[in-house]
Amino acid sequence: MEWISDSNILIVGLGLIGGSYAKGLKRLGYNITAIDSDPYAIEYALKNNIIDDGYTTPDEYVIGRADAIIIALYPEVFKKWIADNQYFLKSGAIITDVTGVKSGIVYDIQNDLRDDVEFISAHPMAGKENRGVQNSDDRIFRDANFIVVPTNKNSHKAIHWCESLAKILGFGKISVLTPSEHDKMIGFVSQLTHCIAISLMTCSDNKHLADYTGDSFRDLTRIAKINETMWSELFLLNKDFLTEEMDKFIEEFDSIKQMIKNDDVEGLKEKMRLSTERRSYFDID
Amino acid sequence: MEWISDSNILIVGLGLIGGSYAKGLKRLGYNITAIDSDPYAIEYALKNNIIDDGYTTPDEYVIGRADAIIIALYPEVFKKWIADNQYFLKSGAIITDVTGVKSGIVYDIQNDLRDDVEFISAHPMAGKENRGVQNSDDRIFRDANFIVVPTNKNSHKAIHWCESLAKILGFGKISVLTPSEHDKMIGFVSQLTHCIAISLMTCSDNKHLADYTGDSFRDLTRIAKINETMWSELFLLNKDFLTEEMDKFIEEFDSIKQMIKNDDVEGLKEKMRLSTERRSYFDID
Repeated sequence: MEWISDSNILIVGLGLIGGSYAKGLKRLGYNITAIDSDPYAIEYALKNNIIDDGYTTPDEYVIGRADAIIIALYPEVFKKWIADNQYFLKSGAIITDVTGVKSGIVYDIQNDLRDDVEFISAHPMAGKENRGVQNSDDRIFRDANFIVVPTNKNSHKAIHWCESLAKILGFGKISVLTPSEHDKMIGFVSQLTHCIAISLMTCSDNKHLADYTGDSFRDLTRIAKINETMWSELFLLNKDFLTEEMDKFIEEFDSIKQMIKNDDVEGLKEKMRLSTERRSYFDID
Repeated sequence: MEWISDSNILIVGLGLIGGSYAKGLKRLGYNITAIDSDPYAIEYALKNNIIDDGYTTPDEYVIGRADAIIIALYPEVFKKWIADNQYFLKSGAIITDVTGVKSGIVYDIQNDLRDDVEFISAHPMAGKENRGVQNSDDRIFRDANFIVVPTNKNSHKAIHWCESLAKILGFGKISVLTPSEHDKMIGFVSQLTHCIAISLMTCSDNKHLADYTGDSFRDLTRIAKINETMWSELFLLNKDFLTEEMDKFIEEFDSIKQMIKNDDVEGLKEKMRLSTERRSYFDID
């Protein structure tokens, strides 16, 4: 990661993901500064040697000395942070992010941003059910997917830098997708599945069934424990792709319901054979 | 399990579950005979010391000497087996099963059965994605749920025997439910979740997305690899409860879709908070 060797990395937003970036990069020897409005997060990170330096407000000097900035904020706060603080940035600085949706964010930020700094968007597909820097752990990146999401405003150098960042943090498959390719994929793979898990937990009062559930029910609903502030923003920012995937799912689910109602054994078996075949492509064992 | 100590246990249907019962009971010292129409299954089980004795056809003498019979067949084959072979049963024999639905099976079989033998229905809630005796493993029972499903035709002695059977096989929570309580529960906890996983795999051609999926998508779709003969029978036998749960799920899923369409952030957050709270009841850590 030549661009930033011997350079200052600033992490903005020291939650689970920001903290995990900090741990991974500090372990590799980088000098890590963090800004987070929560004094407890900064205090915890300093005390546990996760960062070298920490601030609770966007300090002009601190932002101005950073060569690379990793922004790990919720989408709306992210936009506001850039609007409020971009004039403090060092000329030539590179900015990346961790946001889970892209089309509704990347173009706006690139259009508003000063011409002498570059924003290369990225999505580290890793997480945990627990929030906060105290739960951060750079092992969640190990073998996870990392998507670099450039637009035609991005330089090859920035794309390459972002791929290197993912590599040194231990990510497995590193891909490059356009914002809309990313958002369509994430609408299906991540957002649709979260909507399903939520619906399964809220569609009926099922607490009394906890005694009877096995691993498969627990597996299906693990992601139903959800950070409501972040995910409601992510859903709305990806409204078109997500509701399109939801419509397709409803249509399919309803057709299976009709087969059950109509005793259509052959139709059901055909769906199950297709399901079994397709699922085998997702095996990693 | 006093009733059958020093007695002959017959397992009918030597697949994944029948084979796992055989392994567990043989380990405990019981004498295990099996009947399965597949010569390979019998040969494999004999060779690997999973059973003491095996037959590919319902032998009158073999059935007649059994004190306890565990039937691990698909529902429709199970009904036929009882109709064809009940006159070979020893007077006083006890029969149990492993079928995943109850109302559509238990009453029919109890009504047809001779008065001098007793059928006590049970559902061991354990399984694997792979079929067959060669994948059987009695460790799948460890800490799993076991449901005894008596009707008012059953004796206390038989219910107690069935609970003991579950205990010695290592099951965790052992419960007693009526057929309709069982079927309503299983409609939600197991069948609805399988319908969701199938729909998620079949609603769009998603093979190209395999590269981008993380653990949560894999968790959600693990059960989409499904034995189509067994599950299509189970779905149809539980049609009313299952489609009722499917309707509730569709209604809830659709209301979440409407919230996304209408930018109803507060509504979404409320659903996510409820989902997070309810899911916490299902934690076992």
